[in-house]
Amino acid sequence: MSQIRVALGKRSYPIIIDAGSLQKLPALCKKYFTGKKLAILTNKTLYPLFHKKIDSLLKKKFSLHWIVIPDGEAHKNLHTVEKIYHQLLRAKIDRTDSLIALGGGVVGDIAGYAAATYLRGIAFAQIPTTLLSQVDSSVGGKTGVDLPEGKNLVGAFYQPKWVLIDTHFLKTLPLRQLRSGLVEVIKYGIIKDPTLFLFIEKNIQKILQLNQECLKKIIRRSCEIKAAVVAQDEREGNLRATLNFGHTLGHAIETLTNYKSIQHGEAVGQGMVFAAHFSAKKGFCKPGLERRIASLLKRVGLSTQWPVYTPARYRRAFSRDKKATGNLLKFVVLKKLGRVELKLFNPPEIINQL
Amino acid sequence: MSQIRVALGKRSYPIIIDAGSLQKLPALCKKYFTGKKLAILTNKTLYPLFHKKIDSLLKKKFSLHWIVIPDGEAHKNLHTVEKIYHQLLRAKIDRTDSLIALGGGVVGDIAGYAAATYLRGIAFAQIPTTLLSQVDSSVGGKTGVDLPEGKNLVGAFYQPKWVLIDTHFLKTLPLRQLRSGLVEVIKYGIIKDPTLFLFIEKNIQKILQLNQECLKKIIRRSCEIKAAVVAQDEREGNLRATLNFGHTLGHAIETLTNYKSIQHGEAVGQGMVFAAHFSAKKGFCKPGLERRIASLLKRVGLSTQWPVYTPARYRRAFSRDKKATGNLLKFVVLKKLGRVELKLFNPPEIINQL
Repeated sequence: MSQIRVALGKRSYPIIIDAGSLQKLPALCKKYFTGKKLAILTNKTLYPLFHKKIDSLLKKKFSLHWIVIPDGEAHKNLHTVEKIYHQLLRAKIDRTDSLIALGGGVVGDIAGYAAATYLRGIAFAQIPTTLLSQVDSSVGGKTGVDLPEGKNLVGAFYQPKWVLIDTHFLKTLPLRQLRSGLVEVIKYGIIKDPTLFLFIEKNIQKILQLNQECLKKIIRRSCEIKAAVVAQDEREGNLRATLNFGHTLGHAIETLTNYKSIQHGEAVGQGMVFAAHFSAKKGFCKPGLERRIASLLKRVGLSTQWPVYTPARYRRAFSRDKKATGNLLKFVVLKKLGRVELKLFNPPEIINQL
Repeated sequence: MSQIRVALGKRSYPIIIDAGSLQKLPALCKKYFTGKKLAILTNKTLYPLFHKKIDSLLKKKFSLHWIVIPDGEAHKNLHTVEKIYHQLLRAKIDRTDSLIALGGGVVGDIAGYAAATYLRGIAFAQIPTTLLSQVDSSVGGKTGVDLPEGKNLVGAFYQPKWVLIDTHFLKTLPLRQLRSGLVEVIKYGIIKDPTLFLFIEKNIQKILQLNQECLKKIIRRSCEIKAAVVAQDEREGNLRATLNFGHTLGHAIETLTNYKSIQHGEAVGQGMVFAAHFSAKKGFCKPGLERRIASLLKRVGLSTQWPVYTPARYRRAFSRDKKATGNLLKFVVLKKLGRVELKLFNPPEIINQL
């Protein structure tokens, strides 16, 4: 059993990572939760796959209430949150009770936000089922929902009591989502750990074939890197912002495609290639890195070319990025493999290189 | 200039109390805020009264954006919050900018909640304009909105950067709201400070005539008491819950009257008389206190008799109280003047005494 601790003082929490770790669920709930009622939030795709197993694990100790939301980013909004509040109230979930998120990033973000705000905050935990959510949103306590104007514009910093990562969930994950999650793993290598990057270059076939040892290793290392950053900088100062390598363009692409035709990881992958390209053009790093990153992403099976839009449309998409500071845009540049830096640019400087 | 510090570690903040303290506004904004843009949230009643004065104080240093919501608890809901998000986005308020609440409890609660959740939290400050909000909601960081099912069911703990209390605002406050606010001041005397209670008994006429020195004194003492409680127990453990003296029944009355025919303080006043009555019946205190509290509330000009509803309706109203713990209800009992204690009761025990 592999365990990481996210060190945040009183709000520290463990991340348990293993093939088959779901068996630990009853023990975790018993140890960390006080109330007798437990709400589990998941989506319509996952509910039929996993509810019986989880019911059987927990029904002896807890009164369970499932909350099932539609699948997809389109439903990560205030309307869904409001429906969740009503269901929590109908289930008489009180301040002593808890909410578990079972699902990917959308489920985790929305469940965390509902838990943070329902009765001014109830206990919360995560069982991330996608690679992306296992290595990204399950660490760090960012919760939130989208507004029509953009992604994650409403939210809270709210830490879970624990995170349970079972690599077996990845067996039912569509390949496209696995690829998308690998982008963030590769990102950790690029920003912080050349050894991780090399490991992925060497083992990409085994990873895509769901070799459990390889998966466990890259997930653990990703969570460690993110946990170390979050422990130093919980509320997105400059250090935490370096985790956004590739995300400035990534978010813009998601906005421009209405979050529909492209997945988060796919957009970030294109954004990372662009960030390497831009960093080389601006003299922050050598030119070869762009090709090396693009080459690995291609082996994952991803497109590395960002879409074509007019400069004006890109500018509008950037201006809605919540990381905009005054009129300048925060952008993480690459210095060398394993080293990045947060810089401020005028949006045209970036757009001219697109 | 009177100043209190709410001691919450890194999130500590000052409360400035004086007649005419609004003049300090530009200095406070300059000292505590970083961005150049400032959103001010108020309601339709207050905007015409105060916006010119505040514009003239701040327009040199900040780009101001007024957000004006309808007056009244009926608008303290998620729909209003959503409209506020849209206005903040249109005004391009970013993470470095700030939001000030100018108004009573409704404005403060909703502005605080919007500030806590917009872009996962922006800087926030309060200029409470009612006696109730000056002595209650401006201290302690509780923010939130109502759901159709009940009051403050959604919210966050989110501390302001500062609170500015100008007793001159009370000159434009309707008498009914002044009376309602005095209930909470009297509550602080009952739960913690017999001297404050005696001072109010002695000076109630001067207070109702808006004697600024008397007002300043009772507001300061109320804020001190609440600040001391909040510093020890920010997130409503048992100590903070003692501030809810009179509120269990008060909230139920508000629910039963749909928040319409009765003000918060009026409901809490009736709840305090009942709490004293109940405490005497159960042997926690001597019987005379109920009459003494009721007598002072009558001199304030308030009704001291709680409304008649069937036990079933009271039970339903109590069951929606978010302080319900399992099947038991938290209820603050009176032991003697200046001393209360949190206890758990079966709802029928309480309802039988109504």
